[in-house]
Amino acid sequence: MIGLYLEEIEIGRVVELGNHHFTKDAILAFARQYDPQPFHLDEEAAAKGPFGRLSASGWHTASAWMKRYVATNQAAEAEMRAEGREPAPLGPSPGFTNLRWLKPVCPGDTITYRTSVTGKRELNSRPGWGLVFSLNEGFNQSGDLVFSFEGKVLTPLRPS
Amino acid sequence: MIGLYLEEIEIGRVVELGNHHFTKDAILAFARQYDPQPFHLDEEAAAKGPFGRLSASGWHTASAWMKRYVATNQAAEAEMRAEGREPAPLGPSPGFTNLRWLKPVCPGDTITYRTSVTGKRELNSRPGWGLVFSLNEGFNQSGDLVFSFEGKVLTPLRPS
Repeated sequence: MIGLYLEEIEIGRVVELGNHHFTKDAILAFARQYDPQPFHLDEEAAAKGPFGRLSASGWHTASAWMKRYVATNQAAEAEMRAEGREPAPLGPSPGFTNLRWLKPVCPGDTITYRTSVTGKRELNSRPGWGLVFSLNEGFNQSGDLVFSFEGKVLTPLRPS
Repeated sequence: MIGLYLEEIEIGRVVELGNHHFTKDAILAFARQYDPQPFHLDEEAAAKGPFGRLSASGWHTASAWMKRYVATNQAAEAEMRAEGREPAPLGPSPGFTNLRWLKPVCPGDTITYRTSVTGKRELNSRPGWGLVFSLNEGFNQSGDLVFSFEGKVLTPLRPS
């Protein structure tokens, strides 16, 4: 995570991931491709739908989190390389738990994401690697929590 | 779910959601937009990466599940309407848990998805509605489980 090896990651650390602006066009494009429900596709149908207005697919909100997570990691890695340090590579994720879509994300909303380290452990099953556990959150421009999940990501130990 | 009201949904029912074929172009397009990690973007970098070959973003695998889920629901609803019955609307999902990416999904893979009803309950907090709980899975063309999560979706009770 952000170029750090498992030993260097502090539990409790909060990393701001920046924000993602949801345009109506992007909401419609994602919905057409992956989640063509009327309340993600059509303003008139959405007015009669569960949220009373057009909203983004929950998978769009999640994918935008990923976009910000990768961008933040890559920026941190580039900064380390510029300082002559070799960053730890970002590992894949085996999955996550407790994903919550708490409020709809609507056209014009800007969601600010962050990740907070909640734990870490070495993996006996995979020498040289550990897991970093995190709470990931997205807040809209009113400060409301709209999205959260508890993630985990494979993270290398520092080479000895 | 598939046009049924909460009372009509049987625990244990398995619904086949059909399959989704992952082309290299679609894998690259999703990755460029939402998950631009080298092992999702570039064959050469992926060869040195965690899976040894190019693989789809896990969020792409999840979004394709959603696509099949919506398509299956909409086909069931259309069939009911053709028979003169009014389907129950598909509600939104408050979230889910235990998402697992068990194996990489690679260019040329075809993932077959299914959803199995694992439970249901009425919501005291939301009269007229309940939650349906499900286990959702994706298998590749070799029959390997590559993706799973435990979902829940708001489902209306039959209007009295």
